[in-house]
Amino acid sequence: MTASDFNAKYAEITGDFLRYSETVFADLNTPNALAEAMKYSFFAGGKRIRPILTIAFGEAIGLERAEVMPYAFGLECIHTYSLIHDDLPSMDNDVLRRGKPTCHVKFGEATALLAGDGLLNFAFEHILGKIKDKNGVEALKYLAECSGARGMVSGQASDKENENATDKNEERLFETYELKTGKLLTAPFVMPALLKGEASLLPIAEEIGKNFGRAFQFADDLKDVLLSSDQTGKTSGKDERENKFTSVSVYGVENVKKIIAELTEKVICGLKKLSSSEFLVYLANTVNKVEK
Amino acid sequence: MTASDFNAKYAEITGDFLRYSETVFADLNTPNALAEAMKYSFFAGGKRIRPILTIAFGEAIGLERAEVMPYAFGLECIHTYSLIHDDLPSMDNDVLRRGKPTCHVKFGEATALLAGDGLLNFAFEHILGKIKDKNGVEALKYLAECSGARGMVSGQASDKENENATDKNEERLFETYELKTGKLLTAPFVMPALLKGEASLLPIAEEIGKNFGRAFQFADDLKDVLLSSDQTGKTSGKDERENKFTSVSVYGVENVKKIIAELTEKVICGLKKLSSSEFLVYLANTVNKVEK
Repeated sequence: MTASDFNAKYAEITGDFLRYSETVFADLNTPNALAEAMKYSFFAGGKRIRPILTIAFGEAIGLERAEVMPYAFGLECIHTYSLIHDDLPSMDNDVLRRGKPTCHVKFGEATALLAGDGLLNFAFEHILGKIKDKNGVEALKYLAECSGARGMVSGQASDKENENATDKNEERLFETYELKTGKLLTAPFVMPALLKGEASLLPIAEEIGKNFGRAFQFADDLKDVLLSSDQTGKTSGKDERENKFTSVSVYGVENVKKIIAELTEKVICGLKKLSSSEFLVYLANTVNKVEK
Repeated sequence: MTASDFNAKYAEITGDFLRYSETVFADLNTPNALAEAMKYSFFAGGKRIRPILTIAFGEAIGLERAEVMPYAFGLECIHTYSLIHDDLPSMDNDVLRRGKPTCHVKFGEATALLAGDGLLNFAFEHILGKIKDKNGVEALKYLAECSGARGMVSGQASDKENENATDKNEERLFETYELKTGKLLTAPFVMPALLKGEASLLPIAEEIGKNFGRAFQFADDLKDVLLSSDQTGKTSGKDERENKFTSVSVYGVENVKKIIAELTEKVICGLKKLSSSEFLVYLANTVNKVEK
């Protein structure tokens, strides 16, 4: 697959996903600022990596796009809500996200809090309206496990506690990565596998997701060090200024790059077991590569 | 049904519900304070009115208790999360709830925020693990509609906006009641009706829920005026001190009592269409009656 074929396909999936999302949100109106705040954060941009992985993996295992779309949408709702709550003053107190004012800066803290709640709830509400069979229930149950107190929310709590910890503990750091970022990044692979309902696909999807999630978090740490705010759309250099304990402070820049490369190899090895995964292989090879 | 029969039955259902909840939460442990904060708020007491209504209505229409229990549990998780987020400094900034320090006073704002997120997510996660058929999906979908941006969360947003409004608008007030309190109080009736899957039950359940929810919100307004903090477990007299616009300021104490009595009559009229609803009739007759 050439770069231009890849970019065209990425743009095509993104366009389709955004059109779908706009249709869903067009039906959501509230007699207050809630719906506007939810849409503001949802449509604030970003790479849409989670829904794109979900749709592409679904296609790679032979699912119709219409079947995975509600799950791709719900996953992005959950990701967006987590960013809104993470940015709140009582959490990371971030004012810039994807190059725009964060939700609470734009709408006030109360509305941002509720916009986050609304998006989490909306993920389930939307998908529940689209479930066709037992496989659909299983896929949504998996999403709930990844996003909740056994997954992402617990990771956010650990992340906050680690900040205040006096000792820097590697094991705790990587456990936190696994929960906070890792779990929700297995969902784009495991949800379609569950929808398909082929038992042999499940361990492959889980393994790809685990390795991709790790590479993604490590790349995120690298970006904070190597890239500018303009390039990331976030406040860059924040980890270092706040003396935050990350994979870069544990291993150093060059080793983190090496680990990302190794994890990416494993992801690609898994993807090559599928019939048509050229797009995903290209994506895995490029998305977590960070160069100054 | 005598008062002592009613109290015995109320205690029996509550005990069963709490035992079930303890078993579910026993499996939830996190490497941080999250699970503790979730359990703290969930087990902080309260009348458990939503799960008790769910279980009792389920029995009144011939469902096994085991079938409605996951839904009763999820509903109480959602109610508890809404209280935690409502109490946060950026919302109502309340320090006392059910006679105990609120979640953020006890655990800090970040953990309380995440405990709320965790409980909302846990409601779906738990129920999804118990769904047996299409009716189960429909019941959960209804819960999601009631609790989210088309229901409770939108009501919370309206409530916050009404506080800051310079004009006092009756229509907006009652629309807010409907969303913030009303929707989630139809769930104890409509969810079991959907689980049962008998179309004729649905309009009866909806009508009972709508009237019960209104009576409940009006009674809540009355309690703030007529009862002490010791009696309610909340900070009493807050509405009046903050010059809050409520049903009492619109209609006055005596008229609100009259409206509650009329709504309760309608609820009972609906309940009497069912085969065994003595317990619910007694409950409806007493729970929203407020005397100094």
